Amino acid sequence: MDIVNLDHLSANPLLPEVQEVMINAIRTDFGNPSSQHKLGDKASEALDKARESVARLVNSGSPKEVVFTSGGTESVNLAVKGVAWAKAEKGKHIVTSNIEHNAVLRSLRRLKMMDYKVSSVPVDIHGRVNPGDVAKAIKEDTVLVSIMHSNNEIGTIQPIEEIAKITREKNVVFHVDAVDSVGLVPVDVEKLGVDLLSFASNTFYGPTGVGGLYVRRGTHIWPLLDGGVQENNRRAGTENLIGIIGMGVAAELAARDMNSRMSKMKKLKDLLLRELPNHIDEYILNGHPELSLPNLVSVSIKYIEGESLVLMLDDENIAVSTRSACAAGALQASHVLLSIGREFADAQGTLVITFGLDNSEADVSRFLKALQDAVKTLREISPLYAKAAHA
Amino acid sequence: MDIVNLDHLSANPLLPEVQEVMINAIRTDFGNPSSQHKLGDKASEALDKARESVARLVNSGSPKEVVFTSGGTESVNLAVKGVAWAKAEKGKHIVTSNIEHNAVLRSLRRLKMMDYKVSSVPVDIHGRVNPGDVAKAIKEDTVLVSIMHSNNEIGTIQPIEEIAKITREKNVVFHVDAVDSVGLVPVDVEKLGVDLLSFASNTFYGPTGVGGLYVRRGTHIWPLLDGGVQENNRRAGTENLIGIIGMGVAAELAARDMNSRMSKMKKLKDLLLRELPNHIDEYILNGHPELSLPNLVSVSIKYIEGESLVLMLDDENIAVSTRSACAAGALQASHVLLSIGREFADAQGTLVITFGLDNSEADVSRFLKALQDAVKTLREISPLYAKAAHA
Repeated sequence: MDIVNLDHLSANPLLPEVQEVMINAIRTDFGNPSSQHKLGDKASEALDKARESVARLVNSGSPKEVVFTSGGTESVNLAVKGVAWAKAEKGKHIVTSNIEHNAVLRSLRRLKMMDYKVSSVPVDIHGRVNPGDVAKAIKEDTVLVSIMHSNNEIGTIQPIEEIAKITREKNVVFHVDAVDSVGLVPVDVEKLGVDLLSFASNTFYGPTGVGGLYVRRGTHIWPLLDGGVQENNRRAGTENLIGIIGMGVAAELAARDMNSRMSKMKKLKDLLLRELPNHIDEYILNGHPELSLPNLVSVSIKYIEGESLVLMLDDENIAVSTRSACAAGALQASHVLLSIGREFADAQGTLVITFGLDNSEADVSRFLKALQDAVKTLREISPLYAKAAHA
Repeated sequence: MDIVNLDHLSANPLLPEVQEVMINAIRTDFGNPSSQHKLGDKASEALDKARESVARLVNSGSPKEVVFTSGGTESVNLAVKGVAWAKAEKGKHIVTSNIEHNAVLRSLRRLKMMDYKVSSVPVDIHGRVNPGDVAKAIKEDTVLVSIMHSNNEIGTIQPIEEIAKITREKNVVFHVDAVDSVGLVPVDVEKLGVDLLSFASNTFYGPTGVGGLYVRRGTHIWPLLDGGVQENNRRAGTENLIGIIGMGVAAELAARDMNSRMSKMKKLKDLLLRELPNHIDEYILNGHPELSLPNLVSVSIKYIEGESLVLMLDDENIAVSTRSACAAGALQASHVLLSIGREFADAQGTLVITFGLDNSEADVSRFLKALQDAVKTLREISPLYAKAAHA
């Protein structure tokens, strides 16, 4: 039986067109884009083309504003640490939110070990930041605000445009972690008015190990990787050309097909939400009911362990997640779910379902059936469930 | 006419076996190695397998000592900055040599902006570090010694084992930039006795954008990329699995074929050195006559501009370099050549020829013929040459 993949947050399969262009790149001896001779010319052209495609996807005015990285995590680290270090003389205070991805949180924890101070604003029950809180948190020595575009566990989309108005007025650099948004929903750096924006190729069915950072012209950052003069002196190291070529084509396709992909995702999500009450009871949906990723459903199911549920569904060849794969080894309750007011036990009973282009309505039905059985089984052996007098 | 590639330092073509395994990886939906469900299992196994192959190539006792990175530059940055930051409380002094790659030099320059101090030891006329100089440079607050294994411009191999004895005795962490050695010549971390060793996949015909850092058990470094728990918490971010799989196979082949590859390179190098005086005069060979990379020849040709020579040879479909591609945009005389005592003009007239598996003796002949013509033409228009009364 085929595996139903409802965990597209962990990994998206490569699109056939992306596979094809990467295979061609592998079969072509491309050389080094920085070479002085013609062996490097083809490489250099391929790099430029990919950069233009990626710049268009986020509506950057100039491909020079795109820095290729080894993925979303590097992009975020480069933005957060790069600004913090470059601006250290102005100040060492950073504002963020309580529900950021570990790439942001742990970069900030690292900076705290280097004498930086961090203020973290709360979110409401839907996981939304109040822009007024950001304004209040900004101080004289604030050099950076870092707020995510969409949350990878609950899907909530933040009021980035409003926050950007505040940071511009206060002359503070604004970084947006858009790793789970770019390529999935429209992200326009001009409309948003942000200074830095992180993204990853795999979110839009490009290869893993490749990402990008949008750096608005005039925004000064220190490189994370020092060495050669690649990427306009902002990221040293010979480029992962095969990956970048794949990302370029994936970006073109994402821009072209964004609306149809979004409607497809939305349809599957609506079906799941409509049918869920006919299969399980006593659950809470997490995230904003409308301002949310079209492909993500987060549900806290009472009286069960999410990890057990993932394993039982895995036995039925259905892949779901309790949270992002990056945090899977971390063995703590989700800071995101606790931040929106979930109790510890409910947080531990949370499933994240993320749809992808390979899913169909039949997948939703198969998932719901398997979920119903698994929840029933797990609750039958749950002392908490019995104690709550459901047995 | 086919291009004769004598610039394998810039880029090595992917071996057919490496291409094949990467193409298979692209066609397989691998999932995320950190996933909780079975979609990630294959990815996780592939990652383990590659790590074992790479560990074997450098004779690491445990695959856990290998951290995959996005390439040699990241490996070097992770080692140098990672140790400096982790050890900041012990001290902020670092010892290096005058002829390191820009990845080391610029990482150190960055650290100087963070109040670190750097002592740089000289090299002799062949580009060798004197281990005694390293011993003398180490102070109470020295936390790191970083010396390259082989030099990327002149090929000289350093007395790493002797330096490691000193750093061990003085209890200082020793990082070796072996980016231009690993996979090309035997590098054995146990025999060398080093703590950290950087390398890159493309040096041994694997893909660009992938590298590794050997971290001896017990060596504490701060990650450069904070976020998820990948790579034993030493390097966050979803892995470039396709690249890593390619690197693994390239490592296996490099270990298997090392001796035959070295003899082939050595034969081409010997031929070139033997025939060179029959084609041009007034040149200086750079680097150690024996303790040197088997595939690299660096020659400073008097009264010519290296850049012009590269362009003229490029017109003849022969790719050579004046120095590493990473530094190609930097427009300065090579710090390596100045360090071994070359005059500025001679440094500017330097060609670096690096052989690869695709080269033949016919390539050497074609190069020598083209070189002879080009040098003659350039000297005819050279005022320096005229002034030196050769005309």
